[in-house]
Amino acid sequence: MNYPDGIKKRENNIIFYQNRGMNLEKELNESNEYYREEKKAYIYKKPTPIKLVKVDYHKNLITEGYFEKPSTTDYNGIYKGKYIDFEAKETKSKTSFPLSNIHPHQIEHIRNIIHEGGISFLIVRFTTLGQTYLLRGEDFISFIDQNTRKSIPYRYFEQKGFILKDTYRPRIDYLKIIDQIMEGIK
Amino acid sequence: MNYPDGIKKRENNIIFYQNRGMNLEKELNESNEYYREEKKAYIYKKPTPIKLVKVDYHKNLITEGYFEKPSTTDYNGIYKGKYIDFEAKETKSKTSFPLSNIHPHQIEHIRNIIHEGGISFLIVRFTTLGQTYLLRGEDFISFIDQNTRKSIPYRYFEQKGFILKDTYRPRIDYLKIIDQIMEGIK
Repeated sequence: MNYPDGIKKRENNIIFYQNRGMNLEKELNESNEYYREEKKAYIYKKPTPIKLVKVDYHKNLITEGYFEKPSTTDYNGIYKGKYIDFEAKETKSKTSFPLSNIHPHQIEHIRNIIHEGGISFLIVRFTTLGQTYLLRGEDFISFIDQNTRKSIPYRYFEQKGFILKDTYRPRIDYLKIIDQIMEGIK
Repeated sequence: MNYPDGIKKRENNIIFYQNRGMNLEKELNESNEYYREEKKAYIYKKPTPIKLVKVDYHKNLITEGYFEKPSTTDYNGIYKGKYIDFEAKETKSKTSFPLSNIHPHQIEHIRNIIHEGGISFLIVRFTTLGQTYLLRGEDFISFIDQNTRKSIPYRYFEQKGFILKDTYRPRIDYLKIIDQIMEGIK
């Protein structure tokens, strides 16, 4: 298939450029591919927005373009009829997740999705600690609204987050956690 | 805001390259912006996937990239808690909508979204006739499954589709039609 190759190629580039997140994003893309193959969920990583400056339309060739900051989250789609929307980040920090990883537009987007009744969350991997957590958008927003600090302590993920273990297929079975959360919503 | 400018710039380029769809896509982006401002729905056009070949990461500059065919639809998001997913196309034809406008991957995607319980549709503008229709994904798929022809006759849009009139704000109030469709689902 043309598209996934394109995606992986692009992502590797962008992640190298961002110099973080490669493993987590690759694992999530593989997991989403698995979910699609199983007809369980249709969740995709959005292409990174690129501002085109010079394009040769006859050759379908871009000769000057720049990466743009996304104003929404990286992943969205549908699972069990519900709108799913999340952002995935890695941090080397052992003690906290720096909020500089999430742009203000993205925080606003997460608020909007929750308000509209969607299922919104973060997946954060603490690479040095080798731990990956799913944090519900509601818990992320309430931390931001109740704190002035520039980072979310690791403790907060231990208290409020859900641990995501690496498995074989899917690599990260985050929908198992979403099932629990959806149960809680009912 | 940085992002919408970026989007418009990119879209204008891509649409010029595709040589169709500019007006409809601009009107839909304006409508989605209006819906967001009104906190009514959060629906975005996905960035067009671009395969990166040469990137100067220090300058954040792409010097060689190619447009890729999307394997999903152009627009998705959330409205009244429901997952919304659609594709928008323009055709100059007066008699039919050529199916060559929709890639096989996209048809498969539309099937998947319907199966998963999402709200999927096409917005097709017949530019010469000055008519824009919303066609439910279910009606699009059933035509494809029951016909071998390479295009959907205009008559089918008259019979099964919903006319979208241009208004001031939003430019195209397609969510009014979605309300009717959601009523029908209940």
